[in-house]
This record gives sequence, C-alpha cells and structure tokens, in this order.
Amino acid sequence: MLNISILTIGDEICIGQIVNTNAAWIAAQCTSLGAKVIKHTSIGDEKNVIINEINDLMRISDFVLVTGGLGPTHDDITKPVLCEFFDDVLVENKDTLDHVEQFFVSRKRAFTERNRMQALLPSKCKPLRNDCGTAPGMLFEYEDKVLISMPGVPTEMKFLMNTWVLDLIKNEIIKRKFSITKFKTLNTTSIPESFLADLIGNPEEFLDGGSLAFLPSASGVKLRIGVESDSFESAEMEINRIKDIIYSKAGKYIYQEDDLPLAYAVGELLKSKGLTLSVAESCSAGLLGSEICSVAGSSSYFLGGIICYSNESKKRELNVSPATLESYGAVSSETAFELAKNARERFDTDFALSITGIAGPDGGTDDKPVGTVWFGLADRTETITEKYWFAADRNANRERAVNYALAMLLKKIK
Amino acid sequence: MLNISILTIGDEICIGQIVNTNAAWIAAQCTSLGAKVIKHTSIGDEKNVIINEINDLMRISDFVLVTGGLGPTHDDITKPVLCEFFDDVLVENKDTLDHVEQFFVSRKRAFTERNRMQALLPSKCKPLRNDCGTAPGMLFEYEDKVLISMPGVPTEMKFLMNTWVLDLIKNEIIKRKFSITKFKTLNTTSIPESFLADLIGNPEEFLDGGSLAFLPSASGVKLRIGVESDSFESAEMEINRIKDIIYSKAGKYIYQEDDLPLAYAVGELLKSKGLTLSVAESCSAGLLGSEICSVAGSSSYFLGGIICYSNESKKRELNVSPATLESYGAVSSETAFELAKNARERFDTDFALSITGIAGPDGGTDDKPVGTVWFGLADRTETITEKYWFAADRNANRERAVNYALAMLLKKIK
Repeated sequence: MLNISILTIGDEICIGQIVNTNAAWIAAQCTSLGAKVIKHTSIGDEKNVIINEINDLMRISDFVLVTGGLGPTHDDITKPVLCEFFDDVLVENKDTLDHVEQFFVSRKRAFTERNRMQALLPSKCKPLRNDCGTAPGMLFEYEDKVLISMPGVPTEMKFLMNTWVLDLIKNEIIKRKFSITKFKTLNTTSIPESFLADLIGNPEEFLDGGSLAFLPSASGVKLRIGVESDSFESAEMEINRIKDIIYSKAGKYIYQEDDLPLAYAVGELLKSKGLTLSVAESCSAGLLGSEICSVAGSSSYFLGGIICYSNESKKRELNVSPATLESYGAVSSETAFELAKNARERFDTDFALSITGIAGPDGGTDDKPVGTVWFGLADRTETITEKYWFAADRNANRERAVNYALAMLLKKIK
Repeated sequence: MLNISILTIGDEICIGQIVNTNAAWIAAQCTSLGAKVIKHTSIGDEKNVIINEINDLMRISDFVLVTGGLGPTHDDITKPVLCEFFDDVLVENKDTLDHVEQFFVSRKRAFTERNRMQALLPSKCKPLRNDCGTAPGMLFEYEDKVLISMPGVPTEMKFLMNTWVLDLIKNEIIKRKFSITKFKTLNTTSIPESFLADLIGNPEEFLDGGSLAFLPSASGVKLRIGVESDSFESAEMEINRIKDIIYSKAGKYIYQEDDLPLAYAVGELLKSKGLTLSVAESCSAGLLGSEICSVAGSSSYFLGGIICYSNESKKRELNVSPATLESYGAVSSETAFELAKNARERFDTDFALSITGIAGPDGGTDDKPVGTVWFGLADRTETITEKYWFAADRNANRERAVNYALAMLLKKIK
C-alpha cells in the first residue's frame, strides 16, 4: 500500500486554538484513492522540531503531505525550514511572481514588497500553481519519496489537493502496483455499541482478513468495514460479502450507508417521495434548518421555518396558545405539539419538525433539568411528540437534538 | 515548561472519517494552565505502531495524554497495548466493576459479560472514575513521566480532564516550579494579512522574547501574542505591554480580544446597550440564528427569525413583494432590503439581519455566480444592504456569510 503521513505545522493547532480540519479532509481524500494514511502529526513553528519530524515521517511514508507556515509574515517558517532540510536555497520563481502580481491586480489591491516574497521558492521544488491564493504548493522528490508542502488555508489546500496532489497519488498507486484499501460504513441508530457488538458476534468468524470497527457518534454507532485488495473491484466484492453478513445480523438498525449526515438520508427520502418539510425551532435556533440545508438540492423539499426563540414569537408566529405556555411552559409536549402542527399548516408542507428545550447553562429546574428537549413531528394526519434528555453541554445538546429530530422523521417516513 | 503530548488512537481519525476535535480541546485546556503542548499525533489501531509512538512521546514529554481505543468491542486495543508497554497484566478492578454495574442499572439496561470486561484494568494503573461512561481513565507513572489514557467519546474525555487531569497538571507545574506560557489573541476584521503585517512592522523590535503570530480565519486575521514567564502575573504584564504597542499600530481593526466567536462580541454589545435582534435567512437557512444562540444568554437579545428558503415563504412570511422577486430575483439588494426591514418590524426588534444568496453548487448564473450573497441590516431608522462574493464551497460559503453579517452588525452598533 502507498503510505501517507500528514504533517500540520503551526502553533495555532498545537495549542488548540483551532481544530485541525485539514488533516481529516486530506486523509479522507487519500483514503478514498486506496492509499493508507498511517499518521497525522501537528507541531509548532520551531525549526528543529519541524526538521526532526519531517525526517521521521519521510522514513516511514511514501508521501508526506505538509500544510501550514507559508503565509507572508515572520512566523511562517516552512520555506526556510524546507531549504535547510533539502539543502537548498530560495530563488525568485518567475511564473509564481507573475501569478502573485496578477492575483493582486485582479483584486484591485496594492502589490507590496511583502507579497513579492511569496514568489521566493526553494530551487529544487516543483511549484504547484495555487489559483485560490498567493503561496504555491511545493513538491520535492527525495530518493523514492515525495514531500508536498501546501498553505494551511483550507480553500487553498483543497484547491492544490484537487488540482494536483490527488492525481499524483492515484498515478503512483497504479505505477507501483500497490494494493489498495477500501472502506464501507454502515450507519446504525437506536442501539448501544455493546448490544450491537453482541448481535454481530465475533467478527473474526466472517472477516477473513478484513476489518470491522465500531464508532459511536452523535447519530448512532457506525460500523466500518475495511478490506485490502489488489483492485477496487475485488475489494468491492469482498466488502459486499461482509456487508451481507452484517445486514443479516443487524440490518434493522442500519438506516444508511457511507459517511453521510442524517440530513442526507432524510433529504433523499423526501426527494424520492416528493414530500416537503418545514421546521419550528426554539432552543436549536436555526441549527435544524441549517443542517437540513447543508445538503445540496435541499430547496426541492425544504420550504422554510420559524425560529421562535422568545415566547412572544411562539405565540405571534406559530399561534401557540398563551394558556399552553402558561400551564405547561415552553419546554413541554403541548408546546412542541402546537409548534409542529402550526408550522406544518403555515408552510403547507407534508411534515414539520419542532424542537423546544433547555440548552443551558441556565434555565434548568428540578422538573426540567438542563438538556431536557421536547420534539414534535406533524404530518397531514397527526402530530406526535417525544422527550429526550441530553446530559452534555449547551452546544453538544443542540447538535444532538438536531440529530434526534432528523432520526424521528426518518423513522416516520420509512 | 511542562511539556505535554496528545496521542489519539483510532483508524477513524487516521483515515479522516472524523475530525480530531478532542486534541484541540485538550490542547486548549492544557495551554490555559501554562503548559506547553509540543505535539499531537494520530495513529491507527495497530499494536506496534502504538507502542513505538508511546515510546517516542514519553521521551520528549512530561505528560502524555492518550484518547481512544477503550470501548467494549474487539477493535479497542488500547488496554492490552498499555499492558505490553508497561509490562503489566489486566485484573478486575472492584470499584470500576461496581461503577459499571451501577451505570447500567441506573439506565435500566441489561448488564452483559461484555460490559463486565470494562472493569478489567492494568494492575499498575490508577483508575480515574468516569461518571459519563463505563471506561475509566487510567493513570500510569513511569520514571518522572505520566501517561493518562482516556476514552475517545468527547463527553467522557472532558469529564475526566475536568475532574482529574487538569488539576494534576496544574499541581505539577507548581510543584516543579516550571515556567509557564500565556497567550492573548486580538481579533481583527476587514484588513488582509499582509497589510496588517506592514502596519505592525518588524515584531522583533518590540517583542523582547515574546512571540506574535498572524492567523487568517473566516472572520478576519487573529493576532496571537505569546509570553513565557515565571508567573501568570508577570506574563500578564508583559502581554499588556505588547498589546498596547499593537493597539497603537492597528487598534482600529481590532474588534475583540480572546478566542471568542464574533457572535459573542455582538451579543455582549447588544446586551450592554439593551438592544434586540431578529433574522431573516434564505441561503443560510438558520445558521445565523444558530450561531447567535451558540452564546449562552442570547435569549436576552435574540427574539427569533424566519427561515424563508422558498420564494413562497419570502412573500408569505416576510411580505417581500412579488414584483421585487420578479424584477430583481431572490438574490438581490432589493430582496435583502425587504427581508431585513420586514423581519425587524415583525419581531419588533432594534435590529434585523437578512441573508440571501446562492450557496451552490447549482443555481449560479453569469450575472450572479455561486457564492453571491446579499446582506440586509435594518434598524429603527434605516435599512442598508451589502453584497459579497464568496468563492468557496457550499458550506464554507454559508459559514462565511454568517460571519460577514455579524461583522456588519458589529460595525453598525459600534
């Protein structure tokens, strides 16, 4: 297999100021080509630390993909460090200089001496044109290894990966006749990890060299099958064999394949049946609508919704009766019921979901502790409500509540 | 300084199936105590790879914090691996067994043989009670180093960190009289990185041993000052000295300190002035409301909003005139204007923000390419609109649009 390491350079990752979404994205792309991502490392902006790490990763990997430290300011040290590692010097690269100048001209911004420095590149690297920014990617070949350095800005990194790097990796796998790994994820819902494991039994009895992983997530446990093979075709066949066995043991808990959000499964079902959806959101404050519309093409089934954060807006926008709010409170089956029913009527949709709860940190009572959430689901004939208690923090609560509501709808449509 | 490494075990991180949010959270907590996080590593579920990595990290770190691989299924191999590394054996731990049994009883779930295995722990470890799950944390002391193993489920990891680990780190820093590092972030908006760097000039002239980093983000460039010192008090003084110099050079672009979202700065201003806000969202579909309400206490200034995803709902819910939609389209200054103005009137708030744009991937035209977004901002006397073109993908567009709208409001209130 083609072994790939991902190195992220930058104090901001090391100290936890930002989450390393780049590494996950890069890893997922490389994995989909059949390459094996063996390691992610994040280190700070220190010359010797970076050089040691590059050394270690070059030893164990065929490709080392580096992001970060290529900006125009003094704390961006990746270029001089790569010069030292590859025993190289910086020279002005004509094509890159033209590109950077053009980049500023087209944006009607002044081209400064600092920007000109972006065109200084190690002489031994092959520059990879970056249409989304001023710092090009840099490819170094070293014995039979490849190191590619990219900017840390996600849009720029993604452009370079999509335009240059993924093709290089694909070709290398073919050229060197490497075996590949293929994965398949089956998403389950409404069953705890240990019960699912008991249902499936000892995986060694049917895996035959493949792998099976259990991944708890906000929407349920994911089962990931992995198979190594000479070709995608034979891997696919082996995955299907294992998949059939798992379906025969736990099929009724599997609602979707592949790493797609619950909103995608819901969207596909609504689209295929020509049904429409609206929402009424209190504590989730728009997160449910936003999650539904994270799926491209959602405008064909999602018509809109009401964010009724205040009690006043629950009454005015969705006709929740003052008596309901007074007798049962905003976080109650009765309020969730009226919210869903009235949103559905208002938007004239086939379904409406409502969420009303206590996200925290304040507002909890003995009776309704922080994390108590009521859900409503209306269709053209009835409205049902459910309660769930989420123990975690404010923003985790909101995210899990959104997943709960989507799972409720999924069950209903199915 | 106390050096900390973070090791994440699990194929799901390595192959990019999930983003490593744990490492960032752990790093941020440790950094806030003054410790130095020197490295994050993520590796797969392979025994020898894990043992080698633990070996490397123990060599360079005072604390190694490990997450993952402690679940109840066959692919969770951290416990046997730790046994091998520390030359230890698994024994049943009475306190842990009681805790696991109690955990299942209180949730009215059957206690199975598989769950009982969670109480098997390496004999040399000190168990750290986990109130949020069944796998306890495990603390190993080895020469003058400490390794702590925690589950990968974020709520369980956070419970263990908050209840046990952070205090241990704090005490170790005091006991061993380590120096500490303190950071301060200044958030700028509306100025590109290279121009900000030119304004600030050569940081070496005023840093005096401290550090200054430039971090581009969706809401603008962040400036991070770092200072190493014997005490938090002297570090604070030194940070204030550097901060004053930066304010004197670029103060007018700084809208907020510390790593808080734009929604927090907006919320604080609204709260302090007793002002209220509502929203009208088309392409962002609730993300703006959701972002505003990610801040605890937002119910005192955010009253609600309309998700008007369909043209029909723009007309019905917010009285956008059919003539406007027909002549100018849903993505236009005129529609953004009516959405903001009418939402403000409807919710009777001091401000209303509207967002209407083409998130993509479809729906773009030559005239209005994907990424075109119109914003409206209404107060009690006027309504203004602005257009921005975001080049990136669907979900990046929506996130950046939300930040743009919040920055627009921030400028207005100030």
